[in-house]
Amino acid sequence: MRVIVTGVPGVGKTSVMEGVAHAAAVPIVNYGTVMFEEAKAHKLVAHRDEIRKLPAEVQRHVQAVAGEKVGKMTDAIIDTHCLIRTTEGYLPGIPMTVLTMIAPHVVVLVEAPPAQIYARRAKDATRTRDPDSVESIAEHQQMNRAAATAMGVISGATVKIVPNLDGDLETAVAVFLEVFGK
Amino acid sequence: MRVIVTGVPGVGKTSVMEGVAHAAAVPIVNYGTVMFEEAKAHKLVAHRDEIRKLPAEVQRHVQAVAGEKVGKMTDAIIDTHCLIRTTEGYLPGIPMTVLTMIAPHVVVLVEAPPAQIYARRAKDATRTRDPDSVESIAEHQQMNRAAATAMGVISGATVKIVPNLDGDLETAVAVFLEVFGK
Amino acid sequence: MRVIVTGVPGVGKTSVMEGVAHAAAVPIVNYGTVMFEEAKAHKLVAHRDEIRKLPAEVQRHVQAVAGEKVGKMTDAIIDTHCLIRTTEGYLPGIPMTVLTMIAPHVVVLVEAPPAQIYARRAKDATRTRDPDSVESIAEHQQMNRAAATAMGVISGATVKIVPNLDGDLETAVAVFLEVFGK
Repeated sequence: MRVIVTGVPGVGKTSVMEGVAHAAAVPIVNYGTVMFEEAKAHKLVAHRDEIRKLPAEVQRHVQAVAGEKVGKMTDAIIDTHCLIRTTEGYLPGIPMTVLTMIAPHVVVLVEAPPAQIYARRAKDATRTRDPDSVESIAEHQQMNRAAATAMGVISGATVKIVPNLDGDLETAVAVFLEVFGK
Repeated sequence: MRVIVTGVPGVGKTSVMEGVAHAAAVPIVNYGTVMFEEAKAHKLVAHRDEIRKLPAEVQRHVQAVAGEKVGKMTDAIIDTHCLIRTTEGYLPGIPMTVLTMIAPHVVVLVEAPPAQIYARRAKDATRTRDPDSVESIAEHQQMNRAAATAMGVISGATVKIVPNLDGDLETAVAVFLEVFGK
Repeated sequence: MRVIVTGVPGVGKTSVMEGVAHAAAVPIVNYGTVMFEEAKAHKLVAHRDEIRKLPAEVQRHVQAVAGEKVGKMTDAIIDTHCLIRTTEGYLPGIPMTVLTMIAPHVVVLVEAPPAQIYARRAKDATRTRDPDSVESIAEHQQMNRAAATAMGVISGATVKIVPNLDGDLETAVAVFLEVFGK
């Protein structure tokens, strides 16, 4: 089963995925890493940061090649994004052409109350840029729901909402595991 | 005109559809029934419950064959779902491949305030499972709006919201009938 | 860069677009006008109002031909709609077949608080029909977000929200210009 996992920064996506990957014995695949490996194998880049500097057309090709590779995996928890916040607007992490190649069975939205996400980001000392407001985090999550639903209609995948509340990672992992019939 | 009609359980979809079908003289087609008839004709199943036990690939094929059949009807009110609540998440009732074959002119969302839907479900003695909370009914309706909108953009169909409030079936039917220019 | 610009009536879309077109030196293209020009060139209509009277099939063809033309422009701010309110429901302004031909880089949603939009419409003496309620303006904007997000996932375009608040056109133009890296 191929499960695309998404969530805004600070929602605790990594912790939830690791709990699920361990319990379900399914490998985690980072979509960005697969893109980098493909770009490197084709000698397009040497470092991961260089991918975003490639011409848009080449980036799209790399994205598609990575999608093809991931689509061949029987079981995978695919770490990616519904929508990435950029100055040009919300960028779809997995547009239709790539989605069709991955052919996921499930799209998971890891969510939390915007105020909790705000507080988690504030505690993270590695973040230096201006923080998003609670309202803009709420907007991002709302837009992610619309994007995940569009992804579901396009691909036929189910859309699973997994709330990850403060201090209750266990429930988040348990709700996610229902996807694997556990 | 092919009109896909959707709504969460307990919203009163059947009553609204029957009123509309009678006034507009358009037949109601249950999409699940068409799937069953196709599966039965191909000797894949004997009973309707068996459809969900077929391999996913075969189910998808049955879904597509049913979509092709419905797409050939000139006028139909198609009883189906935007998103079906399952433990694996919200399952699209009409994914893109099937949607393209049905080529609907309108996607109708029958809606009601979540608290009214909750109360209607509570009165229905045939329901035995744990009830969804008012919040989860609200979430389901919100996700259905996103799904119906994606279906509209994909197919070019209009998306019509039909509120079905307690004690006012008449208005719901009248609003729906605007779709037929009545 | 091809930028599709959308927003409900009364949101101030035209003022924002004009400010952006001037600052970024990018031409504004009205999608409806391109459709009319194509229909006129093919002797299908003499006046713009006649387009909506053409058979749906012919309208769709005109829409597609216009999409093809716009898709060939290197830089354009394309004035159109996500969803148009009709008695048959919300009509997608740019359905998937046309969207694929335009291949936009960005879909912009010009938004404002529903109460401000309501007040702007009330001041506009050219409007004679029954006004939409504040709630229905809110619903229209919510549905537009879902439509724009579906358009983003389908085409790979980013979705940029541009708030256009009373008395602060300057900020709206500045936020929009981020799309052009300005």
